This record gives sequence, structure tokens and C-alpha cells, in this order.
Amino acid sequence: MSDVLEAALAAIAEPDAAAGQEVQRRLDEKTKPRGSLGGLERLAVQIAGIQRTADPSLGRPVVVVCAADHGVAAEGVSAYPSSVTAQMVANYAAGGAAVSVLARRAGARLVVVDCGVAEPLPVPGVLDRRLGAGTASMLRGPAMSRELAVAALETGIGLASELLDGAGCVALGEMGIGNSTAAAALCCALAGATPEEACGRGTGLDDEGLARKRDVVTRSLALNHPAPDDPVGVLAAVGGFELGVLAGLALGAAGRHVPVLVDGYPASSAVLVAAALAPALRGSLIAAHRSSEPGHRIVLEKLGLHPLLDLELRLGEGSGAALALPLLGAALSILDEMATFASAGVDDSGR
Amino acid sequence: MSDVLEAALAAIAEPDAAAGQEVQRRLDEKTKPRGSLGGLERLAVQIAGIQRTADPSLGRPVVVVCAADHGVAAEGVSAYPSSVTAQMVANYAAGGAAVSVLARRAGARLVVVDCGVAEPLPVPGVLDRRLGAGTASMLRGPAMSRELAVAALETGIGLASELLDGAGCVALGEMGIGNSTAAAALCCALAGATPEEACGRGTGLDDEGLARKRDVVTRSLALNHPAPDDPVGVLAAVGGFELGVLAGLALGAAGRHVPVLVDGYPASSAVLVAAALAPALRGSLIAAHRSSEPGHRIVLEKLGLHPLLDLELRLGEGSGAALALPLLGAALSILDEMATFASAGVDDSGR
Repeated sequence: MSDVLEAALAAIAEPDAAAGQEVQRRLDEKTKPRGSLGGLERLAVQIAGIQRTADPSLGRPVVVVCAADHGVAAEGVSAYPSSVTAQMVANYAAGGAAVSVLARRAGARLVVVDCGVAEPLPVPGVLDRRLGAGTASMLRGPAMSRELAVAALETGIGLASELLDGAGCVALGEMGIGNSTAAAALCCALAGATPEEACGRGTGLDDEGLARKRDVVTRSLALNHPAPDDPVGVLAAVGGFELGVLAGLALGAAGRHVPVLVDGYPASSAVLVAAALAPALRGSLIAAHRSSEPGHRIVLEKLGLHPLLDLELRLGEGSGAALALPLLGAALSILDEMATFASAGVDDSGR
Repeated sequence: MSDVLEAALAAIAEPDAAAGQEVQRRLDEKTKPRGSLGGLERLAVQIAGIQRTADPSLGRPVVVVCAADHGVAAEGVSAYPSSVTAQMVANYAAGGAAVSVLARRAGARLVVVDCGVAEPLPVPGVLDRRLGAGTASMLRGPAMSRELAVAALETGIGLASELLDGAGCVALGEMGIGNSTAAAALCCALAGATPEEACGRGTGLDDEGLARKRDVVTRSLALNHPAPDDPVGVLAAVGGFELGVLAGLALGAAGRHVPVLVDGYPASSAVLVAAALAPALRGSLIAAHRSSEPGHRIVLEKLGLHPLLDLELRLGEGSGAALALPLLGAALSILDEMATFASAGVDDSGR
């Protein structure tokens, strides 16, 4: 632990129930049967609780894509080579990736952060928060030192301070060839899954690749024996730079009363680390979607989250979060723009 | 049957598989693992097939809310009195209802149609397509004559001609106190459900009201004995004016190659009538969401539709369809705006 991290953990509180109740009261005055907008109403209530105001707003939401490489990619656990991480970072910055398109549509600011890409390409518009040239392979030892794990968390906490002024939501995205293997190892270490349950086909592994991935996770866990009551140690053992930064960003955002919209499997696994450090974080989390990666369901259940979308997405990079962002906006528009029974002259005797 | 109806049915074809395949080919060139955007990719492919072009567009989507009253409302099957139908029509037109807010957010045109509200209020901006001052109670005889059922279908077909120039999608919404009872009866008659399965709490019935609703549906079906091989007869027996118009609108839209975005239980039941008349209609349907009304699941299964959202909405009025519209826009933006592996210089060896 460090002072910065301790302070960030101490700043995280449960959502403000009173603000949520006041929003529910406002929603109950709107021209609709009570509760008839289901999940949309719960979303408005939750955002109000997190923001600690009965007048919540998304402001300009920020989608943060944290990227880094993984030593474990060299073990043949991904359909793509590590070089694709840097190429995709350039693609995000240039506006051509799915998350670029979807963040634009959602009116969100897209921030791309290099947390440790092996060989970064010279592209403008990428924040340099490098913790190294990719992690070490967790099959040979810990992915990173404990010091680097703390530094990654602190980097994320720092990003929250830098990026979230005026943002009513932060969406967590990631890129890192090999990081669904790290996610699987985190899922095993922190949610008690077996490698069998936690490993999926990622970007498109065949049966042989999937078997190898499971074997790599099994052996990495046996080698590093991460302890669930030591989340920083787990992150160091089998995590990744971008996952540590995202965990820190989630902590920093929650401490600033900014709702955290979580994307797919790696981003959710990063948040699992953060929630292990600060259980109260869970109240500030919104799951954008459930991906087709089997372990994602386990992580969401461990976090107690119900996803907004279930569209068999498995791209990552924050694409599912950016796709779900308009639902948050819709929930708040309902609160702000709908007429009440009284203002519209609608009979409310049925309520 | 009538000439207008016969012509509308004859115009409905299966989606164009070649256009869909070409769109999938385009999607496979984008910077993402193949198929990794799951349901979003299937949506783009389906819209292309319906529009019969590899360059599909939503243009300016139209949300059509058809409203009418139901004689069966007098049997105590709703938590609200019939007068609320007219009040809500005024609310839609004034921009204060949930569907008004959500259609605006989605950039869609909202069209409100009076198909037979009992006592319409004098409000501007409502299309007058009245088929009567509400239906008769299906507990005393057929809800409407066969002639009126055909007229309702023709009215919807006419609306498609009037409203859908430049629209790449039409979303079907409805309002009519008592119409979830009509929907339940349609679900029983056309999807083989029991009244027990088909009836839910609608806008908020208590246990006693729910029991009464089931009894009303049971007795209405026994009295009118609608035959599933006679969809027009089913509509006349236990349908509603707004449901008939929506069924016609779905047929007219599909014949014009416009995707039909279906909202909740009553709208889906209306579409069930249309699909019984023209089974090929199914390929042109997109289910916006699965509502918390238990019968909705049965209708969607009968139609072979997988909903985009599952947020326990139960408001109707097209609100779920308007909420889902941005997902269609997102699917087409992916197709139009994402970079390809070649254009972005990303290694595609993993595909």
C-alpha cells in the first residue's frame, strides 16, 4: 500500500441512499405507472446515489482505453500477435476503431492511454503513462513487481483526477493482446473460478489454443499462488499494467462520485481487483454488458452486477461500454424531461 | 380480405440474403476479430437484408404511437380508467411522455395516431385515423366487426405509404387502457398460450385484478372462439383498433423494405396478427426488448425474435423501441465508420 492508494480507498463511500430515494420520488410523479421503466429507473436512481445529488447529470462522459502488452502473449494464448496492441492504439487515436465510433456517437470523450505497450508506435493523441514495455510472462514468475502493481493503481488514481472534471461517468476500456488470459487468472484468483470456467476463446482461439490457454492459467496460478486476501499481490502476480491502471481509475472515479461503467471481461477483472481493495466500490459500478466470454458472467456475479446489454459482444476496448452509454443518458433524460401527472393533466388514480 | 390487404401481403418478401452477406463481408474487414460485435453485427446484416442494400441507413426513423380505447377496460382489467388513453395521447403530442423524450433523444420523428380513442381531447399534432369510439367489450361479443378489422389493417398499410418516405426504420408503439388484456387474448389465440400464461399485471394490477383479467380473457375466448387460421377474425374478435392499425403498418413497412422495430406486449401481439397473415414478415422484424409482461416472452418466441434489451420495461407506448433505436444506429455506424485492417495498418493474421 501507499499513501496515495490508502487515501483513494478511504474516499470511497456507499452511494447516497437519500439522493436515490429523492430521484425515485421524482420518477414516481412522471406520467407512467410506477416502476414501469424498470432497469432505466434503477439506473437513474443509482447514478443519483453515486453522484450524491437528486439532480444527476452525465456531463461529458469519458471513455478511457488503457492499453499494455502481456508477456504471457508469447505463450500462444491469443489468436493475434502482441504487435497488434500498438497498432490498435494507433487506430483508437485515429478514430477508426469500434470504440472510437461508438464513443463519438455517444458524445463521449475518448482518452487512449499507453500503460505499457511493448513497442509503441509514434502516434499523437495517446497519453503516456507507461509502466514498462509490457509485463513479464506469468508463466515464468509474477507479471510485475509489487511496486509496479502499486504504481499502476496510483497511475489510475491520478488519471481520475486529471480526466474526470465535468464528467458524470467514466467508461473503462482496455486493449492488450493476451489480457483475456490475465483476466481469466484474476477471475480464478479473486472469484474462485477454475481455469476451465474462466478461460474463453478471447479474440478467436481454436480448440487447441483454448486448451493451451487453460494450461497456461493453471500453471501460472500454481507458480505464483496469488492470495485472494492480497489484491495488490494478485495484480502483480497475474495482472497487467492496463488492468492495474483501470483498477486505480475505478477507485479514483468512485472516490470522486463518478459512476464507473464497466466493459467486458478484462475491464471487469480489473474492477474485481479494485473491489477487493474497497468493497464499497461496488455501489459505484454499472455493468455495460455481459460478453460471450464465459468467465465474464462469473466476474459480474462476484461483483453483484446486472449487465445492461447482453449482445454477445467480445471485442473489449470499451466498445460495449460506449454502446451502453446512451442508456445512461436516456435514464437521466426521463428524469429531466418527462412531464408529471400534474403538469400533463393525466389521471393518476391508478398508481 | 380486400384488394389493398392482398396487395400488401403480396409485397412482403424474405430479406435479401445477398445484401446481408455483403455487409458481413464488409464487417469482416473491420479492425476487430470476426463476429466480435455479436448482436450488433447481426443487426447490421439484418437491416441490410430488409432494406435490400449493402449500404443500409436509418435515415430519419419514425416512431408511430397508435392509440385507441378498449371496451374490455370497463370489465375492471386495468389499474387506470379509459380516460387516461386520451390524456396520454395529449401528453405524447405535447412532448412530455417517455416515448416523446426517448424518440427525441434518438433523433426519431414521433407520430401519434388516434385510431379510436373513446373521447379524444382537442390537441394538435395527432393524426386522425379513427375507426370508432373504442372497441366493444370482447366479453360481450367481438371487439369489432370483420369489416372494421380489415379497415384497421388498411389504415396501417396507408400510414406506411404516408409516413415512411426517407425512414430507414419504423418503431411500433401503442396506447390503449385495457390493451394488455387484448394482447393476452391474441397471445392465447395465435400463440397457443393459456390465459394463465398470457396475462400479466399490465400497468399495475393487484392479485384480484389479475385474477379478473384472466377470467375475462378465458370467457372472451370461449365466447368468440377465435380461430388461429383466420387472423383477421382473431383481430376482430379480441383485438383493438390500434393493434389492427399497427399490424397493417408492420405489413406496409415490410412491403416497402423498412425494418419494423417492435416494442412491448401489445405491439408484439399486433405483429403476431400481421405475421399470421404474412409469415415472411418475420424477417423484417426486430424486437426492441423483452418486457416484464410474462406473455411477451411467448409472443417473441412464437415470432422467433431475440430482443435487444431486457430491462424489465412495461410501459409500452413505444418507449422500449425508442430506447433501442440507438443500437440500430450504432450497428450501422460500425459498418460506415470503422477502419479496415488494411486502411488502419493492423495485422489481420489472427482472423
